[in-house]
Amino acid sequence: MSLELDPIGIIHSPFKEAAGTPIQTSMARDTLGTVEVLRAFANGLKDLDGVDRIWLLYWFDRAAVPKLIVTPYLDDQPHGIFATRAPARPNPIGMSAVRLLRIEGCTLHVADVDILDGTPLLDIKPYVPQFDRLSAERTGWLQQANNRPRTADRRFET
Amino acid sequence: MSLELDPIGIIHSPFKEAAGTPIQTSMARDTLGTVEVLRAFANGLKDLDGVDRIWLLYWFDRAAVPKLIVTPYLDDQPHGIFATRAPARPNPIGMSAVRLLRIEGCTLHVADVDILDGTPLLDIKPYVPQFDRLSAERTGWLQQANNRPRTADRRFET
Repeated sequence: MSLELDPIGIIHSPFKEAAGTPIQTSMARDTLGTVEVLRAFANGLKDLDGVDRIWLLYWFDRAAVPKLIVTPYLDDQPHGIFATRAPARPNPIGMSAVRLLRIEGCTLHVADVDILDGTPLLDIKPYVPQFDRLSAERTGWLQQANNRPRTADRRFET
Repeated sequence: MSLELDPIGIIHSPFKEAAGTPIQTSMARDTLGTVEVLRAFANGLKDLDGVDRIWLLYWFDRAAVPKLIVTPYLDDQPHGIFATRAPARPNPIGMSAVRLLRIEGCTLHVADVDILDGTPLLDIKPYVPQFDRLSAERTGWLQQANNRPRTADRRFET
C-alpha cells in the first residue's frame, strides 16, 4: 500500500545546507523563517492567528536513503532510527514546533526554525500544551548524550 | 510533486470506529494498545526501550475528504483545518504521543492511545521533553473551548 502526499507549501529559513543547521527548535531559538502556504489552502489558515506555537510537518527532501541504524548527532553510538529524530527515516517526515509570530496572507512568520530552506510543507497543527506538553522522565540513550554538538553536519545528506 | 509513503506497521486499539474514540492522548489516559512494526523495520527499534513516551505518526485512513474549514470536536464554531487537529486534512497525517510500556519483538505495548484500530503507522520518534515540552501561552480559539465533549463522533468519517 502506497500513500500519497502533496505539499501544501514551502518553508524558508537561513539554512541552505545541513551542515550548521540546528538539529532541534530548542537549539534554534529566535532563528527566523517563513512558511509560504499555497494559495489553494489559504482558507485552512482561518483562526490560526492567536496561536503562539505551531507544529510544522514537512518532508526531509534532502535526507539520505533510509537507514535503520544511525549514529545521530547527539551521540557517538549507533541507535535504531526510531529511537532518534534523524532525517534518514523510512518515511522521511520531520516535525518542528515553531513559534508563530504573525500571519500575512499566506505567509507565516515563524521563529525557532531548525528546518532547511526550501523544505516541502505537509501540514500545520496548533501546538496545544494540554495535548503536547507531556511528562516523559526516561529518554533512553538521550539521557547520556548531553555533550554533543547542537548543529547538523553532512552525515544524513543525499 | 507527489511524495510517497509506505506504512511501517499497524496500530491496534480498542476503538473500532470514530464515535466514542478519545480525541487526544490526554483524554485517553491508560487506554492500552499495541503497535505492530513490520519485521523489515525491526532493527530500527534498537534502543527504543528505555524511552517513556513516543510519537506515533500515522495515516488517518478513515478520515473524510479534506476540508479547509471544519467545526472541530472541541468547539461549535468553524475554524481553518490548520488551526485544528481534526483528521480531514489535506495530508491526513496524525500524531500522538503515547506512553511506551514495553517492547516484545516487533510489538510495542503502549498506553494513552487515541487512535482507531487498524490505523497504518508511518513513523515512530522518541518524545524528548527538551524538544517537545514547550511553552505556548496562547492557543487561539482553543482557549475558549474547554467545555466540549472529549470523544469523537462520525463527522470526519468517510
